[in-house]
Amino acid sequence: MPTNLIKGNAVIGQSGGPTAVINQSLVGVIEGLAGSSCIDKILGAHHAVSGIIKNDFIELQDVPQERLDRIAQTPSAALGSSRDKPDAEYCKKICDVFAKQNIRYFFYIGGNDSSDTCRIVNELAKKNNYDLRSFHVPKTIDNDLVHNDHTPGFGSAAKFVAQAFIGDNLDNRSLPGIKINIIMGRHAGFLTAAAMLARQHDDDGPHLIYVPEAAFDLDKFKADVAEVYSRLGRCLIAVSEGIHDKDGTAIASKLAGDVQKDAHGNVQLSGTGALGDHLSNALKEHLGKNTRVRADTFGYLQRCFAGCVSQVDAHEARLAGRKAAELALSGELDGSIAIQRVSNKPYKVEYKRIELSDVAAKTQTLDPKYIVHGNNIDPSFRDYLAPIVGDLPIVDSLRGQ
Amino acid sequence: MPTNLIKGNAVIGQSGGPTAVINQSLVGVIEGLAGSSCIDKILGAHHAVSGIIKNDFIELQDVPQERLDRIAQTPSAALGSSRDKPDAEYCKKICDVFAKQNIRYFFYIGGNDSSDTCRIVNELAKKNNYDLRSFHVPKTIDNDLVHNDHTPGFGSAAKFVAQAFIGDNLDNRSLPGIKINIIMGRHAGFLTAAAMLARQHDDDGPHLIYVPEAAFDLDKFKADVAEVYSRLGRCLIAVSEGIHDKDGTAIASKLAGDVQKDAHGNVQLSGTGALGDHLSNALKEHLGKNTRVRADTFGYLQRCFAGCVSQVDAHEARLAGRKAAELALSGELDGSIAIQRVSNKPYKVEYKRIELSDVAAKTQTLDPKYIVHGNNIDPSFRDYLAPIVGDLPIVDSLRGQ
Repeated sequence: MPTNLIKGNAVIGQSGGPTAVINQSLVGVIEGLAGSSCIDKILGAHHAVSGIIKNDFIELQDVPQERLDRIAQTPSAALGSSRDKPDAEYCKKICDVFAKQNIRYFFYIGGNDSSDTCRIVNELAKKNNYDLRSFHVPKTIDNDLVHNDHTPGFGSAAKFVAQAFIGDNLDNRSLPGIKINIIMGRHAGFLTAAAMLARQHDDDGPHLIYVPEAAFDLDKFKADVAEVYSRLGRCLIAVSEGIHDKDGTAIASKLAGDVQKDAHGNVQLSGTGALGDHLSNALKEHLGKNTRVRADTFGYLQRCFAGCVSQVDAHEARLAGRKAAELALSGELDGSIAIQRVSNKPYKVEYKRIELSDVAAKTQTLDPKYIVHGNNIDPSFRDYLAPIVGDLPIVDSLRGQ
Repeated sequence: MPTNLIKGNAVIGQSGGPTAVINQSLVGVIEGLAGSSCIDKILGAHHAVSGIIKNDFIELQDVPQERLDRIAQTPSAALGSSRDKPDAEYCKKICDVFAKQNIRYFFYIGGNDSSDTCRIVNELAKKNNYDLRSFHVPKTIDNDLVHNDHTPGFGSAAKFVAQAFIGDNLDNRSLPGIKINIIMGRHAGFLTAAAMLARQHDDDGPHLIYVPEAAFDLDKFKADVAEVYSRLGRCLIAVSEGIHDKDGTAIASKLAGDVQKDAHGNVQLSGTGALGDHLSNALKEHLGKNTRVRADTFGYLQRCFAGCVSQVDAHEARLAGRKAAELALSGELDGSIAIQRVSNKPYKVEYKRIELSDVAAKTQTLDPKYIVHGNNIDPSFRDYLAPIVGDLPIVDSLRGQ
């Protein structure tokens, strides 16, 4: 045992929106801690921080490997999640429970809000001279963590979006019209941009892609769609739920009559069809009300769909969890695991420790070089994305024989 | 060659909403006709009947098997589809083109509207003493063709719905609240009922299922949801887009400000989030506006998602197409292929010829024995459904250790 190690219990929490591979990271941490003489109990916090302050834990140190493997392949957060954003008093309660339970290792799997929680708890413990090891394991389908090439959960959600667009492009070819698909992503357009992977043949959709990184203008949108529609007789469009006007106001937030906000002050964007219907009606008004315009909102399906997992994503999520455990057991005090790409051909990544404060509450967005005319994604984005998503179904057509 | 056979060209059309396996049936017909001395050209009608009257055909007799196999595995209608509902004049044009092109074999892949088109064209040809063989090959994710145990396309769409619910149930467990999912099906609730396959463990959702076969009452719905929500702290709900009140008026049709109708006089139900948002708002009003209620509309994703195909469905779709070709080449004059279940354990089906008039423009609905209290589906429905859908992802949890 390295000399600066401490003996005690470990707690693991899963926070924020679930993903298809967040349980891989959970199992990765458990595997990484297993058998260490420093660790007594491995506790799972039921519903993240809210479980910690309620002393609601699940013991994980004796779960058989076979079951761990099944859980790793199960989408969503097996421990339950939470959207609580702990304030100072909440964090104090967490530290009190840690002291009472002799919890010396804290692993928190989540996005940038979760890494911030991890940072605050860590700093409070330090202030109290309570010896705690705090590690953040990255997770978010939004892919918006800084210092990360990409984040666990994104690849599988991107695979879902790509497969949905492969099918929907063929659907739209078969019964031509205008089709809008609304994709998750409040500030970052990575997942919406992933729709571009569906393009396999000439004229394949999505023909237009709108991400939150470019200001959205309804008149330009209508003109963009009209141009494609008159040229191809159809138009398939990917739109981020987070698109906003030039003043930074989310289009969706202007629609909601009765806006719901979460603990982080975020307006509810998902779980409603309002944005799609709004854009759809605007197009019908512009192009004639008998124009065939449809809108689908991918909603929660894209983050936890059972049976649509990127194998690379699953593997990386597992290793990110293991890496956090290894660092904690090697004497490191705190940090966040960042996935960084070492080479693209062959695809290779490294798992680096970075400071909690480097990642906490910051947002990574799409590199402007990928955004074309504010209404599309450059083909070069494929080089970045394809290795993370893995193989996609190959489709064929009867055209061009 | 049987004595009553005729030599000429064949035409194949794909009609109505596309499915994940309609190209299997297309390839099945092509394979069934291949090498017959009766068949000169095999013509694919581009966009179904609308391609026929425009003389817009794709030659299919020389497509290599390798490409046929890839096309069979491609979702949506490779020939393009149409929602045209031919009237008498339209059908006369079809017959004129058939005569001009010496088309003697007509294969039409589609649902009940399509079988009716097939029947009308067939009767007109008979009246004109034009020797035509007309066969309808079943296709519909709605599973609503009479005299069929089930229809090609349904099993794959049901698999999508089940996998979506497996993930969404875990999502809803992880971040508890009320979640409504709107599923396709105008008059028949089979696809909505398929959500029940997602139940693997105690308390798994969907907890409530609303199909068009039972009259929908908003007050009862609110009470149903409130009961589950107070008992489990969450509620996952499957709702058919076609739910209607006790007078038979579709709930969705009462919401649309600017209702679009198709050529069959059907009100647009898909491609809008209005129904989900309406039910969602009604629940927030009833349970308090801070109650976490979300609604997703599966929309077009459920019928053509690439990479979510029931292997049984794909196989049966192929064989239904082959059977139509075989019957036509064995001297039968017309008919529709019906899939009928011979035994359940082991699962076995037969492909029977039935009269076009037996299936045309009729709708099969869920057997009332499967509908429980107007808000759920009986567990026995699994015996019917599971063999058609095939294997689903197995998920595990950390509860009950």
